[in-house]
Amino acid sequence: MVNVVVVGTIGLDDVETPFGKVQDVLGGSASYASYASSFFAKTGLVSIIGKDFPQTHKDILEKKGIDFQGVVFDEKNGKTFRWEGAYEYDMNEAKTKKTELNALQHFKAELPPSYKKAKFVFVGNNDPDLQLKVIEQLENPQLIVMDTMNLWITIKKQKVLEAISKVDMLVFNEGEARQLFETVNLLQAANKALALGPKAVIIKKGEHGALLFTKDSKDFKSSHFNAPGYPLEVIKDPTGCGDTFGGGLIGYLAQQANEGKRMDEAALRKAIVYGSVLASFNAEDFSLKRMQKLSWEEIEQRFNEFKAMREF
Amino acid sequence: MVNVVVVGTIGLDDVETPFGKVQDVLGGSASYASYASSFFAKTGLVSIIGKDFPQTHKDILEKKGIDFQGVVFDEKNGKTFRWEGAYEYDMNEAKTKKTELNALQHFKAELPPSYKKAKFVFVGNNDPDLQLKVIEQLENPQLIVMDTMNLWITIKKQKVLEAISKVDMLVFNEGEARQLFETVNLLQAANKALALGPKAVIIKKGEHGALLFTKDSKDFKSSHFNAPGYPLEVIKDPTGCGDTFGGGLIGYLAQQANEGKRMDEAALRKAIVYGSVLASFNAEDFSLKRMQKLSWEEIEQRFNEFKAMREF
Repeated sequence: MVNVVVVGTIGLDDVETPFGKVQDVLGGSASYASYASSFFAKTGLVSIIGKDFPQTHKDILEKKGIDFQGVVFDEKNGKTFRWEGAYEYDMNEAKTKKTELNALQHFKAELPPSYKKAKFVFVGNNDPDLQLKVIEQLENPQLIVMDTMNLWITIKKQKVLEAISKVDMLVFNEGEARQLFETVNLLQAANKALALGPKAVIIKKGEHGALLFTKDSKDFKSSHFNAPGYPLEVIKDPTGCGDTFGGGLIGYLAQQANEGKRMDEAALRKAIVYGSVLASFNAEDFSLKRMQKLSWEEIEQRFNEFKAMREF
Repeated sequence: MVNVVVVGTIGLDDVETPFGKVQDVLGGSASYASYASSFFAKTGLVSIIGKDFPQTHKDILEKKGIDFQGVVFDEKNGKTFRWEGAYEYDMNEAKTKKTELNALQHFKAELPPSYKKAKFVFVGNNDPDLQLKVIEQLENPQLIVMDTMNLWITIKKQKVLEAISKVDMLVFNEGEARQLFETVNLLQAANKALALGPKAVIIKKGEHGALLFTKDSKDFKSSHFNAPGYPLEVIKDPTGCGDTFGGGLIGYLAQQANEGKRMDEAALRKAIVYGSVLASFNAEDFSLKRMQKLSWEEIEQRFNEFKAMREF
């Protein structure tokens, strides 16, 4: 039985940064998010891949214990979703050079029966109609976290807002927050998001860390948390850091629930820091290379560094 | 006897933001920095003004107890330094519309005799030749903090680097850090700055807070501190926030020294948070309007909010 369900893309990436270039590597929001979540809880993937998806990539995810029941093989249409992107010296934003949807065009976001009972669900960035379809299939969710991106805000804004109104937690980046709520002020954007329904809104700010805004609800009080960014000397490839953050966050919360602990403000703040820790490691190498070598000791050590750099 | 000496500009500002427009208001780096410092310690100003400088503006500073001995009246040449700037909805960066140096062209940065014995000196942004001249006049400084800006990095980079090598603490913003050390990576920029001499480097990031990097020295250990930004719902005018931050920082450290306390890492981290607290208030209104109404209770309350919002 999986504890966390992650819905999103699995892809083949070509990435170029000032520190190197890789081709056909494992990518996609759901790959990064499920890998990060798996450090804490049994995680299942819901996505679609083509015939060209290499067994070696599948091995990376399955060795981590990720469940593949929800991954459809698009055998007829063959090719896996592909993304080609590049970063310049300012590594804050990827320049997308090419996107091929391929199999993703046939993605129906249907959950396997056992996944419908999942308590913790990460609805990765996707067409908001598919996100809504995922949400509707859930029978008794305890925590639905969703992400979105500029493309969907531009072309399906009303649907994005509708999806937000049905989740417990919204995770998006500062540019998306400003675009969606038409304000440069992140506090105003967060308050508008909270007014739609979620009890927590997390704004990711890349190297500047992340902001959490909560409102009074069963689980949380109205509050603000400011999570620091980690000062890396070398950032090789930031691809997937946002997804890694989200996956680490929901994985930690699922683990806490497994241990019978309450999901309160303190747990959520720790979850955000664990998400930040994992994302900082992810940036240290291309694709999931750094994550595959990552040990618990390293995670705990960096978690403590996050604590130390915030002490006053 | 003054505890803190602040060297910099006093000016008349015209400022326009999406929230209003003001003309001929009190401005200049030294006005903001000395006002903030005065919340903690007796502060003296070193600057130059013209005949057009209104008594009402002088009153604002003198009522706060700021010492004017070091302020030269440029009677012959008449006009005070003037700055005209505007902010758009993204309030992170001012667009300078006009700068009139006026009296500032005759500024010699000569310290009154008693100021030469000052222990805490804030060398505000200025021509690095004048900054070096200030530093050379100091007889027994305990802490010299300097700021700089893009103009001087562009036209007198070597002199800026020389000035940095002679101070204890460098405070500048992230754009300046990247420009001066030709890297987008702030950790690399900080390490390069520390290698020049200072024992502490502070990088201001506006709404994203501030970063402190220290190296092993008599006072500090090698360490990193990440100070959060304060989430203001309305930012009316960010002019002077960086100077207010620097003034609050040095004022607090001077106060601690007055009370016989050691200047260690813990004190410096608190100083950065007090600087951030004052800067966040400063942004709430034009010129020094919010600062003039600011109470100790408000400062302490917001200091505690800073603590609460980074607790995990």
